[in-house]
Amino acid sequence: MNTVEKHLSQDSAAVEIALEQLFPEEKLSVFEAARYSLLGGGKRSRPALFLEFFRLCGGRDEDAMPYACGLEMIHTYSLIHDDLPCMDDDDLRRGKPANHIAFGEATALLAGDALLNRAFEVMTAARTLPASHILDCVAYIGRMSGVYGMIGGQVLDLSMENTEGTPELLTEMVSKKTGALLRAACVAPCLLAGAAKEQVEAAEKYAYCVGLAFQIRDDMLDVMGDQAALGKRIGADAEHDKCTFAYFYGLNRCQEMVDALTSEAVQAVQTAFPGSEFLQDLAVWLAKRDH
Amino acid sequence: MNTVEKHLSQDSAAVEIALEQLFPEEKLSVFEAARYSLLGGGKRSRPALFLEFFRLCGGRDEDAMPYACGLEMIHTYSLIHDDLPCMDDDDLRRGKPANHIAFGEATALLAGDALLNRAFEVMTAARTLPASHILDCVAYIGRMSGVYGMIGGQVLDLSMENTEGTPELLTEMVSKKTGALLRAACVAPCLLAGAAKEQVEAAEKYAYCVGLAFQIRDDMLDVMGDQAALGKRIGADAEHDKCTFAYFYGLNRCQEMVDALTSEAVQAVQTAFPGSEFLQDLAVWLAKRDH
Repeated sequence: MNTVEKHLSQDSAAVEIALEQLFPEEKLSVFEAARYSLLGGGKRSRPALFLEFFRLCGGRDEDAMPYACGLEMIHTYSLIHDDLPCMDDDDLRRGKPANHIAFGEATALLAGDALLNRAFEVMTAARTLPASHILDCVAYIGRMSGVYGMIGGQVLDLSMENTEGTPELLTEMVSKKTGALLRAACVAPCLLAGAAKEQVEAAEKYAYCVGLAFQIRDDMLDVMGDQAALGKRIGADAEHDKCTFAYFYGLNRCQEMVDALTSEAVQAVQTAFPGSEFLQDLAVWLAKRDH
Repeated sequence: MNTVEKHLSQDSAAVEIALEQLFPEEKLSVFEAARYSLLGGGKRSRPALFLEFFRLCGGRDEDAMPYACGLEMIHTYSLIHDDLPCMDDDDLRRGKPANHIAFGEATALLAGDALLNRAFEVMTAARTLPASHILDCVAYIGRMSGVYGMIGGQVLDLSMENTEGTPELLTEMVSKKTGALLRAACVAPCLLAGAAKEQVEAAEKYAYCVGLAFQIRDDMLDVMGDQAALGKRIGADAEHDKCTFAYFYGLNRCQEMVDALTSEAVQAVQTAFPGSEFLQDLAVWLAKRDH
């Protein structure tokens, strides 16, 4: 385990304990279903980013935890709803039966609703920080997870199915569907800490670059995985999803883009956040990952 | 139109205008779907109660509007998700095709998510009142709409299908499934206004009594409607839902309960809220309604 992985796994353990307390066990089936998807899985990269940015703004973990966990609840609800038959119709998630396979569609739907609702409940009920900072933070998370952020991206994604798409549309979709929550993970903790405008802007830049680089790398790994597994050539294969960065730009250009975005991300936090080595290493580590 | 109806229709018109602004038109399908269910229908009884309690605490309509509308968005999302095939599978809502009939299941699911999310976004973004009052109000609404409130009630309701049930379980289910949002409509505005404890408690009592009376009256109207339409006798009919107040208590006892709850509600606000004639008249009007 390198230092980035060690750091992530420490934060992930602390987040797990907090999540367990913030969505406690109860007899009703919806609690079981929500906890099934919320606990014991996931890299917890969003809460880890949230905690790290909050620390770099001078804050303490315990004050940030309800918001870091709220964000993870929102991420989890989106996965449950995404897997439903009327959406992506996926039976598996993280190697386990999807929520609706394990608990039925009605309970999975309500478990998703419950996680989204509980996120905002937990984030507005915590009161260890100035109320106006809390509102700034929660309103930002709400914007990023809603129609102008993640949900907007999900809808764009649906509308792009079976169409040609363009690099511009793909970039917009990605920066909303997966990028918006990442932005929330980086920017909302700065707002919660009442940080200066320059730090907020640097966090925004970091999130944008890391998010886009991550998605481009993801597309590359898909293609390289296919090549390795199937010996296929990339490109004109009709079975292949044509709306990916790898399809539009090819692997070499993709790697150049990932590298450029990664150094932009590193520069952004280097100047604005003294002591941000973890964030810088994380960006580089993500750009190089091979799974 | 009597004075209660006139009052409701005035508030409803103002709420309609505010909702239209708070969930504006955009090109994406999810906006159209959300607005389809949000605008142009419904009695707006929750936002009307919210505004009235806020006024009685000395507040102004324009300050309360984002929260009154947030509550209506939460109510609307719950209707869209309730109508989905995996839930109640209803094709019609308020005389129009249900959301998933008009827009497809995937878009309806996301429109529901979007409304729930947008509610909290709007409620935390508004800043004309003290931040700590806003947090008290939004946290209360979050509690009432979530697993310990409305969603908990929906799950109880699902679990009671095809079982015998008891009056106690039915009361718990009703007080959560439909009662919790009503409580939010009465109590949250008092918290938003920073009202005294006695007023908060009176609002709680009023909401509980009116909500339960409303549901009992609803059950009665169902039975009376069936009797009128079908000439059936009440009771042992196997096709009839056996978990209703009418089934457990019979029509006469039900009417007694409605009357007793209604005078309790009237008394609660009479003492705590000078000038609460509308609230008192509303409780009486609801208890006597015949549709």
